[in-house]
Amino acid sequence: MNKLIFLSLFIFLGCNEIFKTEVETPNFGIVIHGGAGTILKKNMTFEKEQEYRVVLTKAITVGYNILKSGGTSQEAVEKTINVMEDSPLFNAGKGAVLNSNASIELDASFMDGESLDAGAISGVRTIKNPISAAIKVMEASPHVMLSGLGAEAFANERGLEIVNPEYFFTERRINGLKRVKEAAALKEIAMSTDEIKFFHNQRYGTVGCAALDLHGNLAAGTSTGGMTNKKWNRIGDAPIIGAGTYANNATCAISATGWGEFFIRSVVAHDISALMEYKGLSIQEAAYEVIHNKVAKLGGDGGVVGIDLNGNIMMEMNTPGMYRAQMDASGKLQVKIYQGE
Amino acid sequence: MNKLIFLSLFIFLGCNEIFKTEVETPNFGIVIHGGAGTILKKNMTFEKEQEYRVVLTKAITVGYNILKSGGTSQEAVEKTINVMEDSPLFNAGKGAVLNSNASIELDASFMDGESLDAGAISGVRTIKNPISAAIKVMEASPHVMLSGLGAEAFANERGLEIVNPEYFFTERRINGLKRVKEAAALKEIAMSTDEIKFFHNQRYGTVGCAALDLHGNLAAGTSTGGMTNKKWNRIGDAPIIGAGTYANNATCAISATGWGEFFIRSVVAHDISALMEYKGLSIQEAAYEVIHNKVAKLGGDGGVVGIDLNGNIMMEMNTPGMYRAQMDASGKLQVKIYQGE
Repeated sequence: MNKLIFLSLFIFLGCNEIFKTEVETPNFGIVIHGGAGTILKKNMTFEKEQEYRVVLTKAITVGYNILKSGGTSQEAVEKTINVMEDSPLFNAGKGAVLNSNASIELDASFMDGESLDAGAISGVRTIKNPISAAIKVMEASPHVMLSGLGAEAFANERGLEIVNPEYFFTERRINGLKRVKEAAALKEIAMSTDEIKFFHNQRYGTVGCAALDLHGNLAAGTSTGGMTNKKWNRIGDAPIIGAGTYANNATCAISATGWGEFFIRSVVAHDISALMEYKGLSIQEAAYEVIHNKVAKLGGDGGVVGIDLNGNIMMEMNTPGMYRAQMDASGKLQVKIYQGE
Repeated sequence: MNKLIFLSLFIFLGCNEIFKTEVETPNFGIVIHGGAGTILKKNMTFEKEQEYRVVLTKAITVGYNILKSGGTSQEAVEKTINVMEDSPLFNAGKGAVLNSNASIELDASFMDGESLDAGAISGVRTIKNPISAAIKVMEASPHVMLSGLGAEAFANERGLEIVNPEYFFTERRINGLKRVKEAAALKEIAMSTDEIKFFHNQRYGTVGCAALDLHGNLAAGTSTGGMTNKKWNRIGDAPIIGAGTYANNATCAISATGWGEFFIRSVVAHDISALMEYKGLSIQEAAYEVIHNKVAKLGGDGGVVGIDLNGNIMMEMNTPGMYRAQMDASGKLQVKIYQGE
């Protein structure tokens, strides 16, 4: 009998300890991507790799600090993406790729997991930070998605920073358009399959962020310049709620990057959430299923990052690389570029 | 022993009969909507009601005859929607509502359930049949979604019928914009809740179609003029794959109509498919869950129509009315306007 009392006490204290641990460990986290594609170590210099790692670290630290001090996942997602939009390294904001008219057209979307409210813009040319405009559409209009000149007029009316289109241009993207146009012309004549694949992957890029805050709220956002040499005011998956971005406190927050057409057709971000909600899959299992089975089987490639309602972080891709980083509540940082890293 | 042989023979012949019946009954079907909202019998004349029923019947019969003669669900969806686009009664193509600049901006999308290929256009002003342009984007471009002037240039290059914007204008929609602008100005001052609700619902409308063909392939399409008095090049759910339109041979084909912002946030069409695929719900149960629980709980309203891989047809709404019709393989036609009809 004494042994039983001792055992019960032991179990009680043990449970209490576990319970205390759960309460005392704040649960939040953040994950970002800066685009997926044929990113190979053999094509990268040490200096260029360091540049990417520095900006990824800077961006995620901004969001982490907001979350750690009790800020919202919305603010963390916005400010983190702003850092990547302002960097010329990524295909979003400054440094966005050029369309076939050597102009830029920026897309972005944001979703709040608590209210399921969302905002998006597509095809804008003068808004410095498209993710901030997407959030403003959510907060200050009755609409979810605005486009083109209308979206620019709205952003201007609401006091967002408007810049001259030249602000976004970089020498790298001007050269990039030239190379893609040359490659497109040569495609059927002289290029090997490997070269076609290389140029295909060079054409994409997106930045995105998903976060869970201390209040238990999830949010996700995505921002992009779209596809180099794009025509006909093409809209990709980045500004499409359900495809490039989705957040729902019942499941997860997701931001995608990749060959947008396949991500729209696969409704990637919402499908990951649905597999969790309806089939009980973990965020990792759901993302694996969608990226490696569904998107890959259609012939598409790319990646996703996400975080679930318990703070579990996922970064999944079927490309050789994806610029990405994650930080959990303890402050443990991981910055990665290549697959299997 | 003789009895056993006799019983076995009986079962064999019975099974064979069942099997023959299954093979010999062609399984196809088609369902359409012409918009959902505050459509009340007390506000409708007999003549007006007949006009709607005649065009709904004409439209669905076009698709039914294509399916019956072995045509594809894609062709049935396109030609059926073309009839509603060409009718001034519905908010799509001719008779589309006007935006706040008294101009039109048309959206459409199409998805093929076999290949999961899709096409969409948004914000076009000169393309006579937007659904045909959406299909052309799918078939003749590397993209899924084109917008604005770019989409118009693409449609023109591909030989689609281009019209003067005045083609779309009707006196009813010019008056509609005037009334909505007046109502918007009065909204906060003098209108009762019922009046606000009435004007809110007057602002919407869409046409759509979902079909299953004799080859077992599903397809869905949606076409709209969007929202009366819309600003800032707003994009609703109709051209968004996953929100307004979704088709997948594994589950169903869906077209939605309603308050587009809520339908985007709820990823309505894909969510119905996901509930069927991952949770085993029927098309009717899945649509009920999404429209009455998910969309309604966010404060949104509207309806959906769809057909599943076995030919089961669904028409669901949380509004007082939805113009709609369905035809099964036997040719049984149902045309309905009001809820509970």
